[in-house]
Amino acid sequence: MTQRADGRTPDQLRPIAIERGWSGQAEGSALISFGETKVLCTASFTNGVPRWLTGKGRGWVTAEYAMLPRATNERNQRESVKGRIGGRTHEISRLIGRALRAVVDTRALGENTIVIDCDVLQADGGTRTAAITGAYVALADAIEWGREKKFVAQRSQVLTDSVAAVSAGIIDGVPMLDLPYVEDSRAETDMNIVVTGRGLFVEVQGTAEGAPFDKRELDALLELGVDGCAQLRSHQLAALGQEG
Amino acid sequence: MTQRADGRTPDQLRPIAIERGWSGQAEGSALISFGETKVLCTASFTNGVPRWLTGKGRGWVTAEYAMLPRATNERNQRESVKGRIGGRTHEISRLIGRALRAVVDTRALGENTIVIDCDVLQADGGTRTAAITGAYVALADAIEWGREKKFVAQRSQVLTDSVAAVSAGIIDGVPMLDLPYVEDSRAETDMNIVVTGRGLFVEVQGTAEGAPFDKRELDALLELGVDGCAQLRSHQLAALGQEG
Amino acid sequence: MTQRADGRTPDQLRPIAIERGWSGQAEGSALISFGETKVLCTASFTNGVPRWLTGKGRGWVTAEYAMLPRATNERNQRESVKGRIGGRTHEISRLIGRALRAVVDTRALGENTIVIDCDVLQADGGTRTAAITGAYVALADAIEWGREKKFVAQRSQVLTDSVAAVSAGIIDGVPMLDLPYVEDSRAETDMNIVVTGRGLFVEVQGTAEGAPFDKRELDALLELGVDGCAQLRSHQLAALGQEG
Amino acid sequence: MTQRADGRTPDQLRPIAIERGWSGQAEGSALISFGETKVLCTASFTNGVPRWLTGKGRGWVTAEYAMLPRATNERNQRESVKGRIGGRTHEISRLIGRALRAVVDTRALGENTIVIDCDVLQADGGTRTAAITGAYVALADAIEWGREKKFVAQRSQVLTDSVAAVSAGIIDGVPMLDLPYVEDSRAETDMNIVVTGRGLFVEVQGTAEGAPFDKRELDALLELGVDGCAQLRSHQLAALGQEG
Amino acid sequence: MTQRADGRTPDQLRPIAIERGWSGQAEGSALISFGETKVLCTASFTNGVPRWLTGKGRGWVTAEYAMLPRATNERNQRESVKGRIGGRTHEISRLIGRALRAVVDTRALGENTIVIDCDVLQADGGTRTAAITGAYVALADAIEWGREKKFVAQRSQVLTDSVAAVSAGIIDGVPMLDLPYVEDSRAETDMNIVVTGRGLFVEVQGTAEGAPFDKRELDALLELGVDGCAQLRSHQLAALGQEG
Amino acid sequence: MTQRADGRTPDQLRPIAIERGWSGQAEGSALISFGETKVLCTASFTNGVPRWLTGKGRGWVTAEYAMLPRATNERNQRESVKGRIGGRTHEISRLIGRALRAVVDTRALGENTIVIDCDVLQADGGTRTAAITGAYVALADAIEWGREKKFVAQRSQVLTDSVAAVSAGIIDGVPMLDLPYVEDSRAETDMNIVVTGRGLFVEVQGTAEGAPFDKRELDALLELGVDGCAQLRSHQLAALGQEG
Repeated sequence: MTQRADGRTPDQLRPIAIERGWSGQAEGSALISFGETKVLCTASFTNGVPRWLTGKGRGWVTAEYAMLPRATNERNQRESVKGRIGGRTHEISRLIGRALRAVVDTRALGENTIVIDCDVLQADGGTRTAAITGAYVALADAIEWGREKKFVAQRSQVLTDSVAAVSAGIIDGVPMLDLPYVEDSRAETDMNIVVTGRGLFVEVQGTAEGAPFDKRELDALLELGVDGCAQLRSHQLAALGQEG
Repeated sequence: MTQRADGRTPDQLRPIAIERGWSGQAEGSALISFGETKVLCTASFTNGVPRWLTGKGRGWVTAEYAMLPRATNERNQRESVKGRIGGRTHEISRLIGRALRAVVDTRALGENTIVIDCDVLQADGGTRTAAITGAYVALADAIEWGREKKFVAQRSQVLTDSVAAVSAGIIDGVPMLDLPYVEDSRAETDMNIVVTGRGLFVEVQGTAEGAPFDKRELDALLELGVDGCAQLRSHQLAALGQEG
Repeated sequence: MTQRADGRTPDQLRPIAIERGWSGQAEGSALISFGETKVLCTASFTNGVPRWLTGKGRGWVTAEYAMLPRATNERNQRESVKGRIGGRTHEISRLIGRALRAVVDTRALGENTIVIDCDVLQADGGTRTAAITGAYVALADAIEWGREKKFVAQRSQVLTDSVAAVSAGIIDGVPMLDLPYVEDSRAETDMNIVVTGRGLFVEVQGTAEGAPFDKRELDALLELGVDGCAQLRSHQLAALGQEG
Repeated sequence: MTQRADGRTPDQLRPIAIERGWSGQAEGSALISFGETKVLCTASFTNGVPRWLTGKGRGWVTAEYAMLPRATNERNQRESVKGRIGGRTHEISRLIGRALRAVVDTRALGENTIVIDCDVLQADGGTRTAAITGAYVALADAIEWGREKKFVAQRSQVLTDSVAAVSAGIIDGVPMLDLPYVEDSRAETDMNIVVTGRGLFVEVQGTAEGAPFDKRELDALLELGVDGCAQLRSHQLAALGQEG
Repeated sequence: MTQRADGRTPDQLRPIAIERGWSGQAEGSALISFGETKVLCTASFTNGVPRWLTGKGRGWVTAEYAMLPRATNERNQRESVKGRIGGRTHEISRLIGRALRAVVDTRALGENTIVIDCDVLQADGGTRTAAITGAYVALADAIEWGREKKFVAQRSQVLTDSVAAVSAGIIDGVPMLDLPYVEDSRAETDMNIVVTGRGLFVEVQGTAEGAPFDKRELDALLELGVDGCAQLRSHQLAALGQEG
Repeated sequence: MTQRADGRTPDQLRPIAIERGWSGQAEGSALISFGETKVLCTASFTNGVPRWLTGKGRGWVTAEYAMLPRATNERNQRESVKGRIGGRTHEISRLIGRALRAVVDTRALGENTIVIDCDVLQADGGTRTAAITGAYVALADAIEWGREKKFVAQRSQVLTDSVAAVSAGIIDGVPMLDLPYVEDSRAETDMNIVVTGRGLFVEVQGTAEGAPFDKRELDALLELGVDGCAQLRSHQLAALGQEG
């Protein structure tokens, strides 16, 4: 089997660490690492919903993704300085929000809003997938906070499942899981897969960076992704003290 | 077989029309309709490349997507008035650009830039897929324009393949092709598939709007998409007068 | 008499076409052509008025003008990408709004808002005058839509007159009507004239592009403009099926 | 003859004052008053032209208009705070620039740039016309400064004429000259007229604020405007010490 | 004793002039000069407070600082044109607001808002200190206006003290008061001191522009500043007709 | 002696921690804590200087400060989402930059640029002083990085001194050092003091939040600040392995 630069096998995740409750300010938080990629996820719980949702008996979950200017190998100008948010940032923020909402029963949440901020402190590939995986932990804690404060009904099941995400790609013809920057930049095909704890797809995004790909390659990447997300689920459960 | 509101079978495209050369100003253009969805695609050819690409012997193809304020059933505020481009617009512009670049040999293009503008004049679902499909026709004509003007080498093969895109989704459990707005808003799973003329994937984006989906559903949607794109390819060839 | 590049006499309009009801989404619409200039005008009717007008028993009519990036011979950057609206766009939007309001009895309209969007799909001079002329048709239909929906009182006369606009200019000393781009860019004096169906002035804007002009020249341009607007009125009536 | 609120006859200007050289920093400047309207006009002379004009042997004159937030009876939010320039500001800046360029021979100016800033310190109607009239004085001095510094050729005649502007309007059926705010807000028709020292038109902008107007009314306003500008020319010459 | 370029002694202010009531529109105003530095200060009084303060029985005083583009020796681009306010402008606006609020009893003001605009018409160093000193005069008049209109209680003491500001700096080792631009740009240490009429500090901002400074130098600058502010207080009282 | 809520004496710093080299990407970095306040400081070294400084033989050091949206007790909207940087952010960024430049010999640095990013991950008062103190450590390492890469001359002494900063304030009449949020919000007078390793002042900013203050209070705060900075210097030296 192909050996990767960091010694992993093609179907192996990088070392995963989830530091739950990193923030003393947020209602839920997690500092998650996928190898050298580090993302701080905080969940802010507010009683009430945006005006357009008022009175419908449903809550709202949304997310914002951003990167510190020197998270990457070369410094990027701040989006606040540019005066506008780039397309990539928008795209990832929307992806994280959709992924989380896929496992939230907004009726059970009640008229409460949870905003998840995913700030990349250090970037080495896979920042969006680490963000989704960590955001789930922060979200779970924020919901429990809301329950303790009686904003969320005692027995309502707000989370219908867990959710995690991982990247996969084809490098020199070999499908590989969880790409660091050095692999990501060489991948012919790049895929991000968001999978629930029950093993169902929430989002599948495959892009031909080099040559277009066929069904067989797509299937190989999906299989890697589903397996990777199952492992990430174990890390999430462990962080939340729910393993069993 | 399930009958759809507009009388189509689940695997049938809406009526497709491609009015090639709609614009008297652009180097390439097409007004494309997928049913009531109408997108004006213009290709602007410029000799030279952006500064960051200068001197590398390669060209550049990029795209911008936008919607007229009253393309939709309710009027949307203009992005120019808001002073910023929304996340959805950014996301689709990037998708169109990637799709087109997947079939362009930028070395063969030489140091030339082609900007494709896809402006939605009327929206009824599938605007991004119509945009990609029409943009290919505009792009092909702009490349020929560049060849006639001697900016592109006489025998260089700039286009390595054709490219088209279509949506598919699961509605009431049934996989269906090319969703108009009324279906799209009800779909449990929504997929956009970008396929080359040779039948390879350029981009696969599947999203669970309602319940997460499994591998079998994903495969059904992919199959519909590949067939739909093959039909769209025929329309493209006909419009370009290349059939045979 | 001087022959123009396109064979017209100095006092002749370009071929005028008004495709009423082009949009299947808007409450009123018209795709208008003045020769190669094509403007899509849509009217969006909303029951209710902006907050500052609430409770005064009066309606509101406003307009927004914009140009597709490749409407012109060279591509222009989108105003949404620049992040701001240019002075020319602002100026023309305001002009169209004033022109339409001059023939609307806002009391008779009741507390309803009509926003007219004029998007230039192709530009060859005279875009603002085509926009006003087409906008009147879209506006008339939107008012009738409001009447059918009972938002506008059955017998109230909302439109007090019709309105049309045309350009005129002096080229090589000869006053000429309805200038295409090639003439407009050579004109010494450039005038836009907005005239009601009864032949009264709503707006007169004359600008010395080259040499300042005298009263005799001004009068010649005004006369051309009044005659041109009378012809445009016939086209409007025909499009609306009101000719007699 | 109708008596106006401030005691003037219909064809009388408000008291005009031009304080030439108000600024100790600018190459040319004038603080101009039309009654209570006060505009500070400064001309900034720079050797060289914007990039797009380089090497063509011609200079550039442009203008920017703005209003202090409390120039008016109620405070307006600053455009810098809003983050964008309003349509009215854009429109007036462009008008002032065109008016000045109409009397400048840009070849005689040589490759030099003059930016005229017109900042309204106090507003009581007619700010754009006061701005044009004062800007001419600032411009004339800046050109002389450039001549002294040898940036402008000794004998070149940069100014081909003088230029001034005034408003006129119809109030209760009576054509009146130079409207203060209280009259302007009541005018049925509002006109701004820009006239050269030789009595030729540079710009004529007439707008029906209430009822559309006819040719006779238009002529009456034009006549008032031409006479008013002739008087303003005397004030300009006096300020510049050129009378007689 | 060191002689300065303009003939002053190190502890001498530039000629101070305060033209109270310069604006005919604002509820309070002052055109203040510190030598060639001229700042127009207007105070806009509004009955009511921003939403976040409603119902707390307290008023609000805030300030905005700006500079005309040609107030300085070289023209600066307008912040409205740039589309954003610079850091320096923000910083000074906040400083002026804090300085004024330090002498206002917001309970005594009642639920009223006063916005002070300080627009620099000509700049020669010390613009922020002139702005604070003039703003106090405009503020005092606006409060009296509010009292006359019965928005402010008859006997309430809104102003608890007066406030003035001045700069000081060390040049060639010598502490000097009230620096014009030519001295300011050479100062090793630059200090702005805001002092109440009773001689207490509201704000002390000392910055090492060149070498860091020691306690002895700091004390010398503070002493100059306190003395300078005492003199400015006399000018303020004279302008307000309160001397005695 | 007064006991503080967290048990400190009035002249005691909060627990200080400096994690040098936190970032694997930046040329210098430090994660600094002042109690619960945590700031990530990264220094980005670039060979070359901004255009306006080119060819002068001098380098450039600048800083940007920002706060994560949920660094504070309530979530703040991102400045990138607002589309503009707030006054407070601007002010602090400028302060940090000035503080660092005060101890840098830009000639010795050579034509190199160092940008320091200070991102507040968690905020509990004193974020700007923690930022300056941590930024010095990141800066020192970035300079050494530049020396190793031969961008900085081997023996040049770029840092002329060290620099640290701390806050002090008067609470219930007692001067106290290094205020957390709960004290800062109650302080009558608030001071930020930036002091070099040799004990000289770089910046002194004292503000009366409540009552104005006198010279005696100012002196007490300065003394606390100087002592606090001396202790911070020890932490900096320890982190840099320079103690002794």
